[in-house]
Amino acid sequence: MELGKLLYDGKAKQIYETENENEIIMHYKDDATAGNGVKHDQFAGKGILNHTISGIIFDMLEEAGIKTHLIKKLSDTDDLVKKVEIFPLEVIVRNITTGSFCRRTGCQEGLVLEEPIFEISYKNDEYGDPLINEDHAVAMSLCTREEYAKIKASTLKINELLKEFFLSLNLKLVDFKIEFGKTADGEILLADEISPDSCRLWDVNTNKKYDKDVFRQDIGDLIETYKAVLARMENK
Amino acid sequence: MELGKLLYDGKAKQIYETENENEIIMHYKDDATAGNGVKHDQFAGKGILNHTISGIIFDMLEEAGIKTHLIKKLSDTDDLVKKVEIFPLEVIVRNITTGSFCRRTGCQEGLVLEEPIFEISYKNDEYGDPLINEDHAVAMSLCTREEYAKIKASTLKINELLKEFFLSLNLKLVDFKIEFGKTADGEILLADEISPDSCRLWDVNTNKKYDKDVFRQDIGDLIETYKAVLARMENK
Ligand SMILES: Nc1ncnc2c1ncn2[C@@H]1O[C@H](COP(=O)(O)OP(=O)(O)OP(=O)(O)O)[C@@H](O)[C@H]1O
Ligand SMILES: Nc1ncnc2c1ncn2[C@@H]1O[C@H](COP(=O)(O)OP(=O)(O)OP(=O)(O)O)[C@@H](O)[C@H]1O
Ligand SMILES: [Mg+2]
Ligand SMILES: [Mg+2]
Repeated sequence: MELGKLLYDGKAKQIYETENENEIIMHYKDDATAGNGVKHDQFAGKGILNHTISGIIFDMLEEAGIKTHLIKKLSDTDDLVKKVEIFPLEVIVRNITTGSFCRRTGCQEGLVLEEPIFEISYKNDEYGDPLINEDHAVAMSLCTREEYAKIKASTLKINELLKEFFLSLNLKLVDFKIEFGKTADGEILLADEISPDSCRLWDVNTNKKYDKDVFRQDIGDLIETYKAVLARMENK
Repeated sequence: MELGKLLYDGKAKQIYETENENEIIMHYKDDATAGNGVKHDQFAGKGILNHTISGIIFDMLEEAGIKTHLIKKLSDTDDLVKKVEIFPLEVIVRNITTGSFCRRTGCQEGLVLEEPIFEISYKNDEYGDPLINEDHAVAMSLCTREEYAKIKASTLKINELLKEFFLSLNLKLVDFKIEFGKTADGEILLADEISPDSCRLWDVNTNKKYDKDVFRQDIGDLIETYKAVLARMENK
């Protein structure tokens, strides 16, 4: 399949038009960024790794009944996906406290939560993706209450599926960010990607980090880390 | 009634012990602060004004069935109140968008909301009272889910009562912050104060500000402004 016009050149992926106006091609780049793009680097092979990891996860979720944008894999780095209007929300679940939540509130790091924290932030780079709540999202017309309820229910189900999946790889799912979108006919789909770029994954035994924090915090080799995650997935 | 030991010297009020361990005296000071105490000034008569305004409002709410900490007025500036353990939450309702919500998200100022926004922030000066959601509050043990539900329901009722009350004074209730606490025997009470320090009030016809924003933004005389609010209440 040929790439059409470049519609969006993002921090980690590119979006291309296709001949079908309801479908786009999502291309995974080798770029890694952190701190809203302040830190930026390229890692040969990152695109292939994230594409492969995300593909396995999206297939697993589809099989478990989650509706996703994925139509088919086109190459090592490219997917054909249903074009959606992305809700401008970063949809986040936390199972163990760390990251921005602890930074903003002073909450103790590493608390294993009895119930997951569900939160949303307004996907807006200019304002640094600020945390909001359901009422804010509705007030700003980012989604309706009905859409919020569907997104939340789906996300909590995805959390259960992902937790179990990663636990079978001896990895704790600490937290993750996902995105949802709406098709032209109003269907809500899981979109974007799920990869070590968008999840925090800690080894069950050692708490060693298997995610983008190795890049954010300069504590490990990104490619070796992502390869290790994929190896655990393939040896399952 | 004599003042016992000073238990807390706050930005706007002081709390004194009494002979009864379940009761305290709340004294309104003449101090005004803004920006988490960065801006600070004294205004002779402010304590009396806020005490009088808050007293009228708490009486109105009690009559409408809201349980509050107020026992009785002791003087122009002092109340005898039930001692509670304050939930470390700033409980906020917004009927018109402005302030921190617009600053954080870029949301348009002055949007008249169809449904109020209900939000909570973690009452913690060190972290600048950060916005949180219900799940965060429960994770940090700031309240239980049951307490959150009660606080939210009570707050939305208070919003309806306050909106109507201020509208009868030709003032729009833009937003407000309240605090709740729990008595030794587990009863949840509205505590602290409700005054132009903790509400945004705009004249229905002119949108002129009748609240602490005149001090925050240096756009008017605080005492004259608060006097005008009290005059509208007394001429009702
Ligand atoms: N199915 C889809 N249809 C339309 N857009 C999509 C779909 N899936 C993902 N996207 C969007 O495509 C872009 C992917 O690029 P990338 O993730 O690199 O963006 P980014 O630079 O991280 O910026 P953003 O803050 O928007 O995520 C994102 O804007 C994402 O929201
Ligand atoms: N019934 C009550 N029992 C116990 N404490 C109360 C009660 N009502 C209010 N308080 C607390 O008394 C203090 C009042 O002082 P003030 O409002 O000046 O504090 P502050 O400097 O604004 O600090 P804070 O950020 O705690 O509000 C607040 O900490 C408030 O939470
Ligand atoms: Mg992205
Ligand atoms: Mg206070």
